[in-house]
Amino acid sequence: MSSVGDLRVVNRIAECDIRRTGLLPEHVTAFRRQGVLVVRGLLTPQELADVQEAGRALIDRAWSTRSMEDTVWTLEPDQPGAAPVRIEYVVDKARPIAMLAGHPLLLRIMEQLVGPNLIPTWDSMVFKTPAGAPRLAWHRDAGLYDNAVGVTGAGRVIDAGIYLDPAPEDNCVWCIPESNYWGDDRLTATADQLNASEWDTTGAVPAVMQPGDLLLHNILTLHGAPAVVGKQRRVIYFEYRPAEVEWQLGPHSAEYIGLKQQVLRSCIQMRANEPQFGDEEPFDYQPAESLRHWVDRPEIDTLRFAHEEYWRW
Amino acid sequence: MSSVGDLRVVNRIAECDIRRTGLLPEHVTAFRRQGVLVVRGLLTPQELADVQEAGRALIDRAWSTRSMEDTVWTLEPDQPGAAPVRIEYVVDKARPIAMLAGHPLLLRIMEQLVGPNLIPTWDSMVFKTPAGAPRLAWHRDAGLYDNAVGVTGAGRVIDAGIYLDPAPEDNCVWCIPESNYWGDDRLTATADQLNASEWDTTGAVPAVMQPGDLLLHNILTLHGAPAVVGKQRRVIYFEYRPAEVEWQLGPHSAEYIGLKQQVLRSCIQMRANEPQFGDEEPFDYQPAESLRHWVDRPEIDTLRFAHEEYWRW
Repeated sequence: MSSVGDLRVVNRIAECDIRRTGLLPEHVTAFRRQGVLVVRGLLTPQELADVQEAGRALIDRAWSTRSMEDTVWTLEPDQPGAAPVRIEYVVDKARPIAMLAGHPLLLRIMEQLVGPNLIPTWDSMVFKTPAGAPRLAWHRDAGLYDNAVGVTGAGRVIDAGIYLDPAPEDNCVWCIPESNYWGDDRLTATADQLNASEWDTTGAVPAVMQPGDLLLHNILTLHGAPAVVGKQRRVIYFEYRPAEVEWQLGPHSAEYIGLKQQVLRSCIQMRANEPQFGDEEPFDYQPAESLRHWVDRPEIDTLRFAHEEYWRW
Repeated sequence: MSSVGDLRVVNRIAECDIRRTGLLPEHVTAFRRQGVLVVRGLLTPQELADVQEAGRALIDRAWSTRSMEDTVWTLEPDQPGAAPVRIEYVVDKARPIAMLAGHPLLLRIMEQLVGPNLIPTWDSMVFKTPAGAPRLAWHRDAGLYDNAVGVTGAGRVIDAGIYLDPAPEDNCVWCIPESNYWGDDRLTATADQLNASEWDTTGAVPAVMQPGDLLLHNILTLHGAPAVVGKQRRVIYFEYRPAEVEWQLGPHSAEYIGLKQQVLRSCIQMRANEPQFGDEEPFDYQPAESLRHWVDRPEIDTLRFAHEEYWRW
């Protein structure tokens, strides 16, 4: 188990055993400093099985339809060797994933890190089927701000990856701790250097994950993953941002805030109505009054709000 | 005592009894939402007495010298009725206040709210002598950013006010909870309206304080205080900002970061060397590697770094 002292070691990622300790101040500080945090054991075996089954069904549908709708393939779907690697808007596509988006422990962690006005932005499943997937080059995530380190170096825009399969060292995300505070020049030079060869992990640490674990990364943290063939690895990604940042700085329009708050509230409600989760205390979503953009809006009839329709930049 | 539910009530300020519960997740969320938090009982009686004595001596010196150096007066010091109301750079002027700036409980609270790269910026004593002080008009504090609500609406730039005297309702700071998320137009209109009469507290709540308590306010939170005569009220103010924000957005130069980190480290060391605090675990200042601007710098021989010499804007 991690001691407080261990959390300051830079050559591995800090860990939180969420059902044993909850999210402690030292976990919060470690995440803010390193830009990455492993949270062990978020999902119960039952919920994990349900979300695995939903993930399997979505990937099967991609294979059988060969559709590019909301789906990224390694090559054009009808080319030999093509494989699907990413499906967008999965909260709208599978009820167990919508209920996962209402997970109270997950949302309480995000409230501590993003703040009370958290809104969900991207939701997707990123996966490697046994048909394989290429290297994920070293990068920062999309949707960056001017002066990004000042705005969110400490980590208020966060990708939460929930693992459905094991991710061992040879098939996991690697991160460079504290790169979330690097300026553009250092970041670009390092990424270029690492991406010059097929797979270089200089200065990086592996995020070795088990099914049901949660990996949090600051979108500014430099990360990548090796190419792999013959192994399945599926991750549900939810990105969160503070509504006040979205409101003043984008990247989506102000209208998007209210719609995604409605999505979040629907997911929380859907989960609260499900007998399987009857023992849980639902997450109590309480943003500041002036940022409750769902008030007086018509009901939504979808959980899918396409980024490009609400893009401000 | 506050329950979790109470912390969501907007018509009073959330409170943390720091030596009983520590800073809980619900206190963090309440501060981020409301932009203000009362922390009870930060100082022991002995430390409070030492800092009170230091404050008394600084005010006595202002009266006897009538100097304007680092000192704000209600009128020119030689005019009838003039009274001192503020002294800057108090960490450099009194050893008990320097040791107070190294207070481990205070700094752990600030690390949770500002992040691991916190640096101290302003330090001052603001006070009302029995000679009186005028109304503090409704305002946001200085040193704001473009898109200030996006950058720090949730509260990463924080004023920590340590009270040396009681502040009852008729002689305390009043705040408007959640105004830290207001845009400029709403903020200006509300401040203008409230400042149009001598003292209007519409929508505001009082921060009633006892000696040794700590009041945290987000610099964006609209606040003010009534005029008062015949009562002494002294507050030590320390402002904190994240080094990564200062580095990319100012208001001080990059050089200032390292100097103020040296000041902070000196204060922590000074306190650690003091037998009176021998039972404390000193604050362990661990910013990210790339933000350790004190490394390889010459020793400092002052704790006073004047803002105007390091101003970027």
